[in-house]
Amino acid sequence: MKPLIVFQTDFGIGGGSAMRGTCLKVDPELKVYDANHTIEKFNVRAAGRSLRMLVPYWPSGTIFVSVVDPGVGTSRRASIALLKNGSYVVTPDNGTLTPLLENPGIEQIRVIDETRNRLKGTEKVSIFHGRDLFAYCAAKLASGIIDYEGVGEEYPVSEIVTYPQWGYTCEPGKVSGIITDMMRTFGNLESSIPISVFEEAGFRVGEEILVKILHKDECILVKKIAYQPSFGWVAEGQEVLYNSSDGVIGVGINRGDFIHTYGIGFGEEWQIVLEKE
Amino acid sequence: MKPLIVFQTDFGIGGGSAMRGTCLKVDPELKVYDANHTIEKFNVRAAGRSLRMLVPYWPSGTIFVSVVDPGVGTSRRASIALLKNGSYVVTPDNGTLTPLLENPGIEQIRVIDETRNRLKGTEKVSIFHGRDLFAYCAAKLASGIIDYEGVGEEYPVSEIVTYPQWGYTCEPGKVSGIITDMMRTFGNLESSIPISVFEEAGFRVGEEILVKILHKDECILVKKIAYQPSFGWVAEGQEVLYNSSDGVIGVGINRGDFIHTYGIGFGEEWQIVLEKE
Amino acid sequence: MKPLIVFQTDFGIGGGSAMRGTCLKVDPELKVYDANHTIEKFNVRAAGRSLRMLVPYWPSGTIFVSVVDPGVGTSRRASIALLKNGSYVVTPDNGTLTPLLENPGIEQIRVIDETRNRLKGTEKVSIFHGRDLFAYCAAKLASGIIDYEGVGEEYPVSEIVTYPQWGYTCEPGKVSGIITDMMRTFGNLESSIPISVFEEAGFRVGEEILVKILHKDECILVKKIAYQPSFGWVAEGQEVLYNSSDGVIGVGINRGDFIHTYGIGFGEEWQIVLEKE
Repeated sequence: MKPLIVFQTDFGIGGGSAMRGTCLKVDPELKVYDANHTIEKFNVRAAGRSLRMLVPYWPSGTIFVSVVDPGVGTSRRASIALLKNGSYVVTPDNGTLTPLLENPGIEQIRVIDETRNRLKGTEKVSIFHGRDLFAYCAAKLASGIIDYEGVGEEYPVSEIVTYPQWGYTCEPGKVSGIITDMMRTFGNLESSIPISVFEEAGFRVGEEILVKILHKDECILVKKIAYQPSFGWVAEGQEVLYNSSDGVIGVGINRGDFIHTYGIGFGEEWQIVLEKE
Repeated sequence: MKPLIVFQTDFGIGGGSAMRGTCLKVDPELKVYDANHTIEKFNVRAAGRSLRMLVPYWPSGTIFVSVVDPGVGTSRRASIALLKNGSYVVTPDNGTLTPLLENPGIEQIRVIDETRNRLKGTEKVSIFHGRDLFAYCAAKLASGIIDYEGVGEEYPVSEIVTYPQWGYTCEPGKVSGIITDMMRTFGNLESSIPISVFEEAGFRVGEEILVKILHKDECILVKKIAYQPSFGWVAEGQEVLYNSSDGVIGVGINRGDFIHTYGIGFGEEWQIVLEKE
Repeated sequence: MKPLIVFQTDFGIGGGSAMRGTCLKVDPELKVYDANHTIEKFNVRAAGRSLRMLVPYWPSGTIFVSVVDPGVGTSRRASIALLKNGSYVVTPDNGTLTPLLENPGIEQIRVIDETRNRLKGTEKVSIFHGRDLFAYCAAKLASGIIDYEGVGEEYPVSEIVTYPQWGYTCEPGKVSGIITDMMRTFGNLESSIPISVFEEAGFRVGEEILVKILHKDECILVKKIAYQPSFGWVAEGQEVLYNSSDGVIGVGINRGDFIHTYGIGFGEEWQIVLEKE
C-alpha cells in the first residue's frame, strides 16, 4: 500500500485544500489526511511538538507534511527527513524537526530539488511552497514516481536547524519545568516535565502536591493539587495534576478551565515547580 | 467492504488526528471520517442529538466513535452499542446513547474489555480514552481483527445511562416544546416539536402563526411568524418557521440572525409555544 | 477510478458531515473531501473565487459541490455544470459559477431533476438541498448510477446567473483594482490585479511602489512598499507586495497583520492603486 500523507499547517481553518488537491492530481489513489491547520502562526516549536505527538500514532512510512514556514520564499532549506521509525517529514528546515532528532531519531535528510520536484507553472509564485513544493514532492514520493534519493541532495543530519529544547530540573521531592502548551478547549496546561521524571522524583498517584507557577520569576499561583489519573477523580471545580496523553505532567480543573481561572500563559517565561510538602 | 469509521468529539478544532492515526495504524486500509469536533464541551445531550442526525445518513454498518466524556478515567462504562439499523456507536455510556434507544433502537451493548482492546503502551494514561480505547477498539472491529463479541461482555440495554428527553405538548391549534439547539452560523433555533406533531395540530404551510418564546416562564418574544418551506419564501429580514432538516420545527430570519436579534438561548429553561390566532 | 467529490459550503466549522454520509450511503467506495466549510455566509462571490482557486489544483473529472445558497428552497435553479477541463460543479445557479465561465470555461449546464435525483424521504424538507439534492445527485454521478445526461435537462450556458466581475485599469506605471479578499490568518489582502497585468505595466521585482488604498474614494493609506517574491525578503514588520498563489497582487506585512494594522476591508468599496514614483 502507498504511504499515507498527513498535513499540519498554520494556515487556519479551511486551509490546505489546494495542497490535498495537488497530491491527488499527482495520484488520485493517494490517501491524504488533515491533522491540524490551526497550529499557532509562525510557531515552529508548536509544529515540532505536534509532530512529536502525531508520529508515534500513525503507521510507519507515513509522510507528514508540516507547513509552518515564516521564511517561505527565502533561502531556508525545503527538506524531507527520513525518521528512524520509517516515516518521513516534509518541512522547511527551520527548527520544526528539533524534537524528532531525539525521538524517534532522524536517519537522513535531503533538500527538495526545485528543478525537478516543483509543480510546473508555479515558478513565479514564492509564497505557497506548501502547495507547489512540499505537497507536490510528498505526492511524488508517496506515489512512487520518485524514491527518497529522487527528492534531492542529502545533507548532514548535524546541519538540521534546531531550537533549544525546554528542559526540567529534578531532585528528590522537587521537579520544575516550563509550561509548554495549552489545550485551549479544555483549559489545561502541559509542562516540560516527563511523567517518568516526576515519578522518579518520588511522587505517587493520590498525593497532594505543592504547585507553584511563576511568570518571569513572579509567583502567579501557589496551591496544593492532587495527582490523580484523570479529571473525574477530583470533585467538580477542583484542580488536578495528571499524566497527559503526551507523556508529560498536565494541570487542569475538573469541568473547569485552569488557564482562564488563573490567567496562565505558556512559553519560556512560564515556569512550573512541583514539590512535596 | 470494511465498515467506515466516523468521529465526533468535543475536543475542538484540530482535534482527533491522533485518533485517526491510531485507527490507520491498526489497518491502513480503513476509511476514517471526521463528522464534528466542536460539539459543546461536556454536553452529552448535544452528542446524542448529533448522533441522531448522523446515523440515518451514513451507510448501515458504519462505526460512529463519539467522545464527549467528562468522566474519562473514572468508572463510567466504555461501550460499543449495536444499533437496530446495523451501525455501531462507540462511546462512554454517559447518556450519549439516549435518543438512539428510540430511533433506530439499540439491539445490544457491550463494555470494551480494556485487558484486550486497549492500545498497548498507554496503560498509564487515563485522560485520552478517545485514542487509547475508543478509536483503537473501533479499528479492531472495523478491520475484522475482532468481531462484536470480541469487544467485551454484553450488558442489558436497560442499564444504558439515559437523560430525560425534552418533550412537547400538543392540542388542536397549539403546540409547545423546548428550544433544543442553535445553528450558530445562520442564527436559527431548533425546537423539540416534531414537524409531524405540528401538522397534526392543524398547522399548514403558508399560515401566520403566533410564536411565544419564554425563558424560565418570562416572555422574551411574542410575534406572528409565517410557516414556509424555507427562508427565501419570506422577505429579507423577516422571521420564518420551517421544517428543519432534522424533522422538527426551526425558526430563523431570512438572511438574518434570529438568535442574536432576540437574545435567544437554548436548553430546558427555554420554551417555545406555537398557536393559531 | 471514480471521480473525487469535493465540498465547499458556508455552513461553518463542523458542517457537511451529513452530506458526506449521504454520498457514502449511495456508494461507500466514493472518495469525498472537504475543501472549506467557512466561506463567508451567503457570499456567492467568495464561493466563486474559491472554486476558481480550487479547480486547477484537483484532478480533471473532480465533482465540486458548492453550497452557498441564500435562496435555498426557492425557484433558483439547482444545477450541475460541466467545465471545459472535464470537472463538474454542483451548485445553486446563483452567481457562484461566474469566474469559471472565463477560466476554465463551462461546456454545458443541466438542472438537477428533483423527481429523479432527490434523496427519498426528504421531500418535505426545503432547507437542506446541500444534503438532499446536491450531495445526493453528485454521488449518483460519481458512482456511475447516472451519467451527465441523467442529471436533468440541459439549458443554455448563456442563461447562467452571473455577477459583475471586479476589474482593474492599467496604464504604463500605474494599475488599479479592487481589494477582493483577505487571508485572515495572516492578515494579507488580495487584489483584482493580475500579476501579468502588473508586470506589463512595467513593474519589476525589487522596486519600491507607491501603494494607495481608498475606501469609497477616501484615502486610507499611502505608502511606499517593496515588490518582492515573498514576505521574508523584507525586514520583520515591513510591508510587502507579492505575487499571491492565486495569480494576483497581494499585500501583507512580514510576520505582521496588514489588515488589522491599517483597518483595511474588502469588496467593491475598497480600491487599491499601485504607481511608479
